Amino acid sequence: MAPQDLLEALSDLHPELTILTAEDLAGRHPGEHSENFGAQVMAQPSSTEAAAALVTWCAAHDVTVVPQGGLTGLVGGSISRSGEVILSTARLNRILSIEPEEMTATVEAGVTLEALQQAAARHGLTTGIDLGSRGTATVGGMVSTNAGGILAFRNGVMRHQVLGLEAVLPSGAVLCDLTRVVKVSAGPDLKQLFIGGEGAFGFVTRVVLKLEPQRPHRATALVGVADARSALALVRHFRSLPALALEAAEMMWPRYIRDHAALKGLDLSWLETEAAALLIEVSGESVEAATSALEAGLEQSWEPLDLQGGIVAQSLDQARRFWDIREDSGFYYAEIPLAASFDISVPPLFLDAYVAGLESRLKAIDPTYAAYVYGHIADGNLHLTLIKQGPLPEAELRAVERAVYAGIHEAGGSFSAEHGVGLEKRHGYEGFVSPEKQALGRALKQALDPKGLFNPGKVPF
Amino acid sequence: MAPQDLLEALSDLHPELTILTAEDLAGRHPGEHSENFGAQVMAQPSSTEAAAALVTWCAAHDVTVVPQGGLTGLVGGSISRSGEVILSTARLNRILSIEPEEMTATVEAGVTLEALQQAAARHGLTTGIDLGSRGTATVGGMVSTNAGGILAFRNGVMRHQVLGLEAVLPSGAVLCDLTRVVKVSAGPDLKQLFIGGEGAFGFVTRVVLKLEPQRPHRATALVGVADARSALALVRHFRSLPALALEAAEMMWPRYIRDHAALKGLDLSWLETEAAALLIEVSGESVEAATSALEAGLEQSWEPLDLQGGIVAQSLDQARRFWDIREDSGFYYAEIPLAASFDISVPPLFLDAYVAGLESRLKAIDPTYAAYVYGHIADGNLHLTLIKQGPLPEAELRAVERAVYAGIHEAGGSFSAEHGVGLEKRHGYEGFVSPEKQALGRALKQALDPKGLFNPGKVPF
Repeated sequence: MAPQDLLEALSDLHPELTILTAEDLAGRHPGEHSENFGAQVMAQPSSTEAAAALVTWCAAHDVTVVPQGGLTGLVGGSISRSGEVILSTARLNRILSIEPEEMTATVEAGVTLEALQQAAARHGLTTGIDLGSRGTATVGGMVSTNAGGILAFRNGVMRHQVLGLEAVLPSGAVLCDLTRVVKVSAGPDLKQLFIGGEGAFGFVTRVVLKLEPQRPHRATALVGVADARSALALVRHFRSLPALALEAAEMMWPRYIRDHAALKGLDLSWLETEAAALLIEVSGESVEAATSALEAGLEQSWEPLDLQGGIVAQSLDQARRFWDIREDSGFYYAEIPLAASFDISVPPLFLDAYVAGLESRLKAIDPTYAAYVYGHIADGNLHLTLIKQGPLPEAELRAVERAVYAGIHEAGGSFSAEHGVGLEKRHGYEGFVSPEKQALGRALKQALDPKGLFNPGKVPF
Repeated sequence: MAPQDLLEALSDLHPELTILTAEDLAGRHPGEHSENFGAQVMAQPSSTEAAAALVTWCAAHDVTVVPQGGLTGLVGGSISRSGEVILSTARLNRILSIEPEEMTATVEAGVTLEALQQAAARHGLTTGIDLGSRGTATVGGMVSTNAGGILAFRNGVMRHQVLGLEAVLPSGAVLCDLTRVVKVSAGPDLKQLFIGGEGAFGFVTRVVLKLEPQRPHRATALVGVADARSALALVRHFRSLPALALEAAEMMWPRYIRDHAALKGLDLSWLETEAAALLIEVSGESVEAATSALEAGLEQSWEPLDLQGGIVAQSLDQARRFWDIREDSGFYYAEIPLAASFDISVPPLFLDAYVAGLESRLKAIDPTYAAYVYGHIADGNLHLTLIKQGPLPEAELRAVERAVYAGIHEAGGSFSAEHGVGLEKRHGYEGFVSPEKQALGRALKQALDPKGLFNPGKVPF
């Protein structure tokens, strides 16, 4: 259906449904992909009922639906085209309840992670998941991609945080399962399909999440390490100390830390030349206790782990500057726009062998090739960016994908750790998800969405 | 197909498939339900390939398959009938690998929880889940019921422990997804269907589980509490102390603790008459540290939480006697065989109101009715047994079910917390799972098992 006809048909569909036109969208930022607003028609329900009315109408008229959250996705999972309807969570943005003694929150899907963190903070609580795009990423989007982030080594991923969920199915029926307890064995847990489902099975409208106590007393350090093995040993050491909790262990391989520090004017004179940097954050009973436990832990580890320098932040501002080096990870795009980037997970002990192999596999394609490598070391989640302006010619991109994905599957890892499949990681899905699993995915998609109207072409069923 | 014909057809099907006859089964214990061996034909594969061969044959001949693990299930999920084939994990009992530095284990589905705990202990590790039937319950069965147990308040349930999984689908195809990392966002995580799937979607053959460090230095106390609210406040207090970790918080309501203590000769003179008992176990850097932290924590809480007596175990033997009072929870069946029992979860703050309401709802059915109530207080999981010999007449059982389930769903809880649905909790499923979710379950079952050959009639699709 042409966008103009869609707009006319939808404009009076439901009083709690706002319809945005091409003109409305022109002034808005389409997020990480310029084609996200390709449909030029966006429906913003402010209630589950309105979302169900929209989906029911689309099902009856064979109109394709593309769910969108905060548009921070990096794999093209929200790209839309003319003739489709964008179904946005922008107005589903209420925090419905926070139960401090239960440590749970019930929110609409469009609530941003940061908004929930701020509301929970009033009760001394926070989310069990945190990630760099917290200000824009929504709970619904994080559910749909099974987001991971900084704390997954301790708290697991989004799947481990979701207690209850409500979604509109492609038929327009509403699946409402807003349990608030961790123990449920009441038949298969069908809401799991929507966690990591990337909008292929329905549109998430409400979520019940676990919360956890805030641990506000922090200390932060940047530490030089020779390799991932040393970094992991340091992680294990800090995790074994009873007086503190490890809050983050983010590793930046040498090229990333050097280039980014140079750009931001961060002094790295303390870091040995060939070393990688590990951002360590811990919490304790007080800032002083956390700081001295961090210092003592580093001192104890200095010789045995052959640490390559280190600096403990002396102020919140300094800690923020360390974090900016890690979290502003798009710094390189100004120099290498549209560079090919990847998000993989490998069993942590395989990291050093993997990174060494990657360097040589890339150089075998083109001797000038190198990558920025950084990530969540404790759970083996690496982010990689090829230092080369994109987009690459198709054949070369395929060669780079093969170089990046080599050995991961056999080692027990994944070609996509926390960003999803979307459009851009289709080749990973087709190459590394077993034929039996792909067939099962198609069978389930057929059962839920026989017309293929929900986010078609993203996860390639 | 008649059992005799089945035996003949299966006897030479695959070299790694052992077939047991009625005669073989006669000397074996059928577990918690006398009808578990009703099929009188049991196939015991010792490899995934042999299991797949059996399932392929059954699919081709329209023969029903009933998966069985350790037979500790309490809801009839493993009951089989003549003409069916029992597919047992008894010979899939190898621990395939333990990766100490990754803190993961890969096991076949028939490995018992205790066998895995013992193997992991050699590396200073243990499972993130523990439960009373550890000596017999298998990993595969725990996956299939999404088991919870003692540590779920801290570590979540089985779903949160499973990293990878392999299963034979009803078609005979093998779904192999043995990832060993926590972060995977590579399309919908279809293995979730088998966690809590109660054998309706396939037969689990291998599992990758997270492990965690052993915390062997324990201290244990029995504490008198006036109500669940006090118990939960004590739980929160102990969870906030940095020098120890809370390992268990098991509450036994007055009738349960009094009757069981009398039966086992446990002195309760320290416990105030109307009080419930809370079994608290903590771990610390040493037994001495754990014990003194436990004593200090109780002393601090004594007045503010109005504790009703307490006793800290002075020896491992005494701690074991405390645990026996909680874990030998079948003590009452000698007096009230086949008593109706339930396993529910309610948001913890709702517990006192729920238990008080339950008493009066039961007495409204029959003034002599009362229940044994005990369970995992920190996650709101209660076990309930009607103090009355069973089986009850059908209409009376329905009335008792209504009394037990009243208000749970509305409060955000579940009619089945960790035991599953099986045959016995069908009415709970039909009454409290939304029509939309039931319809979705049927659609998925149809997609995976169109002939309905896997564990039919259990979860009522």
